[in-house]
Amino acid sequence: MALQEMMSLYQQRINQALIQHLPPATILPTRLHEAMHYAVLNGGKRVRPLLVYLTGKALNVNPDILDIPACAVECIHAYSLVHDDLPAMDDDDLRRGKPTCHKAFDEATAILAGDALQAHAFHLLTQDPSASLTPTQRLAMIETLSLASGSRGMVGGQMIDMEAVGNTLNVAELENMHIHKTGALIRASVKLGALASADFTENRFEQLDRYAKCIGLAFQIQDDILDVEASTETLGKKQGADNALNKPTYPSIVGLQGAKQMATDLVAQAIQALHDFDNQAEPLRELAEYIIKRAY
Amino acid sequence: MALQEMMSLYQQRINQALIQHLPPATILPTRLHEAMHYAVLNGGKRVRPLLVYLTGKALNVNPDILDIPACAVECIHAYSLVHDDLPAMDDDDLRRGKPTCHKAFDEATAILAGDALQAHAFHLLTQDPSASLTPTQRLAMIETLSLASGSRGMVGGQMIDMEAVGNTLNVAELENMHIHKTGALIRASVKLGALASADFTENRFEQLDRYAKCIGLAFQIQDDILDVEASTETLGKKQGADNALNKPTYPSIVGLQGAKQMATDLVAQAIQALHDFDNQAEPLRELAEYIIKRAY
Repeated sequence: MALQEMMSLYQQRINQALIQHLPPATILPTRLHEAMHYAVLNGGKRVRPLLVYLTGKALNVNPDILDIPACAVECIHAYSLVHDDLPAMDDDDLRRGKPTCHKAFDEATAILAGDALQAHAFHLLTQDPSASLTPTQRLAMIETLSLASGSRGMVGGQMIDMEAVGNTLNVAELENMHIHKTGALIRASVKLGALASADFTENRFEQLDRYAKCIGLAFQIQDDILDVEASTETLGKKQGADNALNKPTYPSIVGLQGAKQMATDLVAQAIQALHDFDNQAEPLRELAEYIIKRAY
Repeated sequence: MALQEMMSLYQQRINQALIQHLPPATILPTRLHEAMHYAVLNGGKRVRPLLVYLTGKALNVNPDILDIPACAVECIHAYSLVHDDLPAMDDDDLRRGKPTCHKAFDEATAILAGDALQAHAFHLLTQDPSASLTPTQRLAMIETLSLASGSRGMVGGQMIDMEAVGNTLNVAELENMHIHKTGALIRASVKLGALASADFTENRFEQLDRYAKCIGLAFQIQDDILDVEASTETLGKKQGADNALNKPTYPSIVGLQGAKQMATDLVAQAIQALHDFDNQAEPLRELAEYIIKRAY
């Protein structure tokens, strides 16, 4: 099956799972639950759930076991976007071509919907409808996701990002920001998939983690490249938004060609990291290549 | 030992535990970690940790086991105050006599510090330095805290609260708001203490939960009463702040005397709920009485 086709199937799967595993929008307080649904069910690319499923596939894990961790990491990602878009943060009006959560609802509702989505992510990981994971595995998943999304992970990266606006960063500082802001959750996604495997080994995990580190950074570099190259319509957010905010980006530091070379090198390293895996890991390899080919 | 003395000892204990179990303020990004410390180490009354410890005491649990759950519930409480104080929410400048987090730092930092504190709370519950809890017990604690702090608990209550500003509520609607906004976390605190007990039984837990429900509501009614009666200096926040925001309160609906009677009745019910417990539960009974005697 071609990667695009597989991605489409997993996107359908995660969207179904998210609808099933979010509190219904009809329960009280309905406005809050509607805002949570709005924030999550928004046509996102679902890269993080995809990584959970594809890592599980590389390790022969039944995808039924992966719905909950995939939903959990996407709830964390969705909440971070809602808070990131707030007026006090990036002050964005559009997200994937639609009004951001605080524009569609209001600021207080957006703050609370984000807060509730975070709590929900951890609550989901305490549930195991397939009864296939040990309590120790579920605890390890919660440990992984909470560390990756906190002050030493994603939220720490957002803080570094806020502090960087208007400052000159070098490549190492920019990389440090992205390792936290987006890299931590991408690595966590791969780890969640790996933790679901019964035959999880340190060695296997280190290889997958190296893969995750490389594609996480490549993904961010490509985002920066697309922010320069793509039109607002394709991107679903204001083109050149990072530049307008005077945010440091890879193209602004190493140039557009330099950034493209970095992304290409990282993808090669990611594929190399999976050298010992059999063809069950082929979709992970294809995903790495897709990252720098995507136009949005 | 008198309750006041015991409260003081547990306050010292939880403050020490919080310092120990928060990420140090010196690690990067330091401004974020400083804001987290500022939000947590603020001289709060530590009612929720106290409930964890006192419930544990009633069930003969070693307090060493309770430091982590006590810290976790306080991190959730602290984050909720930081977000509640934001301009888009209650827009408060003072909290316990000091500038609120977004005043001492800035709005973006306050949003992120709150987000990181929530992630940290769940991360803490995956840790067990005393190695005394089973993975199943720790998962049950995470399940309890995540449900109580999410859209069907605390955050849901904050949403109901926001929607209530300027509206007329009846007593049942006001009670529903408080059951979610503050009651859920107070019940969770008692449940965390109970879940740490090796001889946890459903029957025992139901009695403790009835106690928690009653004191949770009594605590909120007393807060409303104090908001009317106390001075700004004693309260550490603007006196009459709820009234100024046109927020519904018990005194505004049932009158000051009616509110006092309700609080007194609830405390009696709370003590009655612990009828079958021995004198190890005496501090819980005294705490219930303290709630309506306190002046701040």
